Amino acid sequence: MGVPTGAGTALLTDHYELTMLAAALADGTARRRCVFEAFARRLPDGRRYGVVGGTQRVIDAIGAFRFGDDEIRHLRETSVVDEDTLAWLAEYRFAGDVDGYPEGELYFPGSPILTVTGDFAEAVVLETVVLSILNHDSAIVSAGARMAGAANGRPIIEMGSRRTHERAAVAASRAGYLAGFATTSNLEAGRTYGIPTSGTCAHAFTLLHDDERAAFAAQVAALGVGTTLLVDTYDITRGIDTAIEVAGTGLGAIRIDSGDVGVLARQAREQLDALGATETRIVVSGDLDEYAIAALRAEPVDAYGVGTSLVTGSGAPTAGMVYKLVEVEGRPVAKRSSHKESQGGRKLALRRHKPTGTALEEVVYQAGGAAPEFGEHDRALQIPLMRGGQPPSELPTLEDGRTRVRQGLVSLPWEGLKLSAGEPAIPTVHLSQES
Amino acid sequence: MGVPTGAGTALLTDHYELTMLAAALADGTARRRCVFEAFARRLPDGRRYGVVGGTQRVIDAIGAFRFGDDEIRHLRETSVVDEDTLAWLAEYRFAGDVDGYPEGELYFPGSPILTVTGDFAEAVVLETVVLSILNHDSAIVSAGARMAGAANGRPIIEMGSRRTHERAAVAASRAGYLAGFATTSNLEAGRTYGIPTSGTCAHAFTLLHDDERAAFAAQVAALGVGTTLLVDTYDITRGIDTAIEVAGTGLGAIRIDSGDVGVLARQAREQLDALGATETRIVVSGDLDEYAIAALRAEPVDAYGVGTSLVTGSGAPTAGMVYKLVEVEGRPVAKRSSHKESQGGRKLALRRHKPTGTALEEVVYQAGGAAPEFGEHDRALQIPLMRGGQPPSELPTLEDGRTRVRQGLVSLPWEGLKLSAGEPAIPTVHLSQES
Repeated sequence: MGVPTGAGTALLTDHYELTMLAAALADGTARRRCVFEAFARRLPDGRRYGVVGGTQRVIDAIGAFRFGDDEIRHLRETSVVDEDTLAWLAEYRFAGDVDGYPEGELYFPGSPILTVTGDFAEAVVLETVVLSILNHDSAIVSAGARMAGAANGRPIIEMGSRRTHERAAVAASRAGYLAGFATTSNLEAGRTYGIPTSGTCAHAFTLLHDDERAAFAAQVAALGVGTTLLVDTYDITRGIDTAIEVAGTGLGAIRIDSGDVGVLARQAREQLDALGATETRIVVSGDLDEYAIAALRAEPVDAYGVGTSLVTGSGAPTAGMVYKLVEVEGRPVAKRSSHKESQGGRKLALRRHKPTGTALEEVVYQAGGAAPEFGEHDRALQIPLMRGGQPPSELPTLEDGRTRVRQGLVSLPWEGLKLSAGEPAIPTVHLSQES
Repeated sequence: MGVPTGAGTALLTDHYELTMLAAALADGTARRRCVFEAFARRLPDGRRYGVVGGTQRVIDAIGAFRFGDDEIRHLRETSVVDEDTLAWLAEYRFAGDVDGYPEGELYFPGSPILTVTGDFAEAVVLETVVLSILNHDSAIVSAGARMAGAANGRPIIEMGSRRTHERAAVAASRAGYLAGFATTSNLEAGRTYGIPTSGTCAHAFTLLHDDERAAFAAQVAALGVGTTLLVDTYDITRGIDTAIEVAGTGLGAIRIDSGDVGVLARQAREQLDALGATETRIVVSGDLDEYAIAALRAEPVDAYGVGTSLVTGSGAPTAGMVYKLVEVEGRPVAKRSSHKESQGGRKLALRRHKPTGTALEEVVYQAGGAAPEFGEHDRALQIPLMRGGQPPSELPTLEDGRTRVRQGLVSLPWEGLKLSAGEPAIPTVHLSQES
């Protein structure tokens, strides 16, 4: 009780989770020991790998999953569930276990990304918020990793907030940072997650002034010569001349936000060098995605600004993960009709590698069965994320996740890093099929 | 001051809005009277119309745009702006005017969807949150309107929360309702916006039980015979037999979530009728989009459940709107280099119609120039949304927006309702080009 409206996550839930709960409380099955697994049946079309994002946010959301007075009153007024269920919800605290892939880990079809163990009642009600977070954040970090790979070490500035829901923008900024982006434009992501923020001026600032020179002078006066001047409001060549006249050859950077940015970057580099501004960097932005970034590899670009394509998952805005009941009282269960089959039983996973460190295959096996042999270069993929409803004293940080993404990309076979459509970079081997 | 962390919208803002502000405060241009316009340069690929969503949320977000102690402290600690700017932000209250298309109104390329009038400082800082909301909500309602059109009066249940960011899900649910969806699965949307919620049980509930019969019996006992039984966990034909045995011929509905739902719906209808359950409805779900809904028109389907495709905008997850400075101290301004040109000057808009009510063209004209002739069947498209920072006493409601979407779809020329890729349903005529 007493959780303020808006702070909790309990109503970020589908109506049917609570009606299932009510029916299970009424017939006594709510206390059955269950295992739910979150996984993706497949990767988005043509993608060669996925990257797990949102794990830390899932743990936080489970901790904040409390039905306060306002939530209970709403559910009573709308007759969603009966009084017994409301009484149960008012006392709700998740007390089960969660295991899963740490943030930044690669995943493939069938990878058991998150495993929730508890009684049916406490585990089923988490489905919606767990999937919302995993599906959103994993979609963004998976797209972001492709862009970071294409940028090949050049920094990327995340600037997509205005293209997505205002709160999703904060999570997308976090996911971009996880993927390897250098900074974000989103101030709330800076406050909430400590991500470095950056930004200087838009075209509006130039248009506000009587001319470009006045705008540049005002910007340099306020933000210093290390700032980035946006030179494409009127004429880029004249814009660059004016920028260096105003700021001097110590100008930090120019930004080009429109046109054929590859050609323009080459021209700008020549012009800047001729003006003596050899250290002035060139930032390009404007509808860049991983393909555009890759195409700019040979151009004199020092940093990329990426907006829409990151926050929309570059064609795959959701990761398509599902949260399935796989075990009841120790017994494997699975839907059997038609297309959407899934493997029953709680699963564990390891990834096999060559001695060089290159990934070979994802091995998914039954927790209750015989463990496969672990070679010297193999690695278990799940870590404990909650025990008895509490996270362990130390969880991987966002920085750890960034490192993990980098290491994961390095571990892929070379085909896995291709941006073109293809099969998953490594196969998933289900040992469970034998048991 | 004193705004609690998390409640405000002020940090849902790009870093560069505040650096622009700082530079403009320093050189005195911050007080120049400005007009910003939000519009879409084009519709998403192949779309024939867009629908405005999020206007009410924009007004709420502007009202909540306050820099409290926490926000100021964060900006000071991270040196985003100087102390003079922080002092200005601490006192920030938007005191300007907002005009725009009401929610649910159709829009086309160049339609002036939202016009913000104020001084540069107060108007520029709103860019990010205004666009985040308009771009997300308009993308969803535009996709949803296509689905509602395809459903042709049959109800659609929104159930996409788990496929998108947990807070975006609430806004998406609202946008779906605006588009004409009947109910949502999202409980927070129910609480926040009063949207009717619905839901019964997932496959997990059947798998939890010893057999399907036990699961159905528990559900009917808890939720009544009017409930919807999910019959495709094991074998659909047996599932339907069991459903009617358990619930009787008064069963409210069955749901089929997988397989070729058209064929299965026909078989299910025959089976239900043969069992005497002629009033039992058939709900289908499972990766439905507007095309799948249209393809099911001739099948005995009573309601659709739609998830992923709505919340991801069915291929167009963002509406691509921009927020551009178009006027400074009464003088039109516009970016001039390369591709991204836009029209300077504050614009008004009207839509011309045939006497039958069919839309003919979108006329966009300069507020300062000669007004075009208004015919008997023409209609001005903008309404006042804020005056001196305050919304008018009465704004259109969410229900008004639903009505407006319905009326808008009816007003389209018949090609406009085609789901196939095409040109905008009506042309946008820019009278401003003469001035």
